Amino acid sequence: MNPTVKYEIKKRLLSAKGQPVSGQQLADEFGLSRTAIWKHIKELEEEGFVINSIKKKGYVLTSSPDSLQAAKINQYLTSKRFGQSIHYEETCPSTQPIAHRLAQSGAPDGSIVVCEEQTAGKGRLARAWTSTQGKGIWMSVIIRPEIPPTKAPQFTLVAAVAVTRAIEDIAGIRAEIKWPNDLLINGKKCTGILTELQADMDRVHAIILGIGVNVNQLETDFPEEIQSIATSIQMVSGQPVDRAQLIARILHHLEIYTDLYITHGFEPLKILWESYSCTLGKRIKASMINQQIEGLALGITNDGVLQVKTDDGQIHGIYSADIEIQN
Amino acid sequence: MNPTVKYEIKKRLLSAKGQPVSGQQLADEFGLSRTAIWKHIKELEEEGFVINSIKKKGYVLTSSPDSLQAAKINQYLTSKRFGQSIHYEETCPSTQPIAHRLAQSGAPDGSIVVCEEQTAGKGRLARAWTSTQGKGIWMSVIIRPEIPPTKAPQFTLVAAVAVTRAIEDIAGIRAEIKWPNDLLINGKKCTGILTELQADMDRVHAIILGIGVNVNQLETDFPEEIQSIATSIQMVSGQPVDRAQLIARILHHLEIYTDLYITHGFEPLKILWESYSCTLGKRIKASMINQQIEGLALGITNDGVLQVKTDDGQIHGIYSADIEIQN
Repeated sequence: MNPTVKYEIKKRLLSAKGQPVSGQQLADEFGLSRTAIWKHIKELEEEGFVINSIKKKGYVLTSSPDSLQAAKINQYLTSKRFGQSIHYEETCPSTQPIAHRLAQSGAPDGSIVVCEEQTAGKGRLARAWTSTQGKGIWMSVIIRPEIPPTKAPQFTLVAAVAVTRAIEDIAGIRAEIKWPNDLLINGKKCTGILTELQADMDRVHAIILGIGVNVNQLETDFPEEIQSIATSIQMVSGQPVDRAQLIARILHHLEIYTDLYITHGFEPLKILWESYSCTLGKRIKASMINQQIEGLALGITNDGVLQVKTDDGQIHGIYSADIEIQN
Repeated sequence: MNPTVKYEIKKRLLSAKGQPVSGQQLADEFGLSRTAIWKHIKELEEEGFVINSIKKKGYVLTSSPDSLQAAKINQYLTSKRFGQSIHYEETCPSTQPIAHRLAQSGAPDGSIVVCEEQTAGKGRLARAWTSTQGKGIWMSVIIRPEIPPTKAPQFTLVAAVAVTRAIEDIAGIRAEIKWPNDLLINGKKCTGILTELQADMDRVHAIILGIGVNVNQLETDFPEEIQSIATSIQMVSGQPVDRAQLIARILHHLEIYTDLYITHGFEPLKILWESYSCTLGKRIKASMINQQIEGLALGITNDGVLQVKTDDGQIHGIYSADIEIQN
């Protein structure tokens, strides 16, 4: 079987959105016999697609497996640039290095790398990130804004707002943002965002946004040592979520917010961000590479820097840290 | 001829520093006949090495061509980490993307990429940089300091001081530093430094320092349109300079200053930098991506940021810009 033809047939079925697709027409188009087309359809059925064959009308796709293949994401895309180029892997160590390589070789703004499973997913400070096969969104987005590198940390916050909005739209759950890069539901982590950078001192070449969302895990899908601190959308809503649809929605908001950022700066996004934050107004302990600061989280600046007031009245600007909320 | 054996013989001759190397010993060591060793010596002579054969003593290297091959640089190295891994190319579009790839695949701190000729060398803001074959130093240095990305711009200044000191040591010429990334001799540009970055929001993964030094060009080696603004060390000193020796000296200072920076911070380097600067105390025009500022260059902060006082008395911090000195 020719995998390109199968991919094209799948794309046709998905984009027909429940309408029949004529087998004869597919056969003509690809220069194949109707039997060859039928064999491709059988293979798709083996992959979990449910396809009805309606006499004199054609094939109708009635249900598709929860996979993330490009064609599946494509069908839900409402963004114009983001997700137009999709690099899909069944399994990979991590989507970030792949995205870095693609960015180096000129991948356009909004290109994404997505996989079913990461075998060596990473969070901030190279901490392990569990990326169970087929259960979450393990994705890297390449963004190329014309900004100086000092502004890059803002994109962690832009992404946090985009993912929060997408989860709200698709699953009806309101997550909270814990500065800088975590989304929590009921105090447990459901999303991590890792912002990496290729830049010179004048401007950013590419931001490589790593987004990990726990979507359809059950408690036992998580390693025991993180079961008390991790959650998934399904664990909260009781419903499985179509990951491709959620990806498309994240890309939708990410594109809108990136464009908003480019035209109006960080301020409108800061307001949005603050409305989802669970960090501000709290007493926190912030741990950096070689420093710790305890105090009141006052707010974020227009650069996305967290302002913390220590007991001696001094105000410290923090770019990135581990935050422990103390009240 | 086996290129590895030839490389090892060359290394042996270079490190003998004028002492004879026994042909019989080389033959025994590599399991080759004396005739085979002699053939390798002949090949080296064809490459421009001058080798005397002294009866009963062996081969003596009396002069080597001005090339940058790893063995040649190695003989001059006094640094411990910097230059221990050398990636050499005869010709390449630019050493920076090669160094980026090496850094991504884990190249150690102090690794360098060096070539005889760049066909598409780049300066700040993707401007063309002329890299004439065999006449200059076209090099990228991978540095892995444990610092947050906000500190990375300081490395342009650290590198500027290291190159200035190296030129002073080797050629006896004192260059001036024009903030942020140019070295000038008699007001003409002889060196450009490009600081690129791989990072996340917490820390730098790698700084890729691009260093271009005009060494042995004559005026006519430069394209006509830059002859009035470019110069080389040889044009000023009247003497050709051994590029491998200059590279080793740059790496020597770069390692010392990087270590100084890690243990004592930017302040001691700031003092050094200021002593070579031709920007401070001058009226300047600074052009950024989407802004221009005119005023008095007051100094640099402990973060390496240029402080400019405009006529309304306001002080602006500038991370990177084109600087026009107005008096």
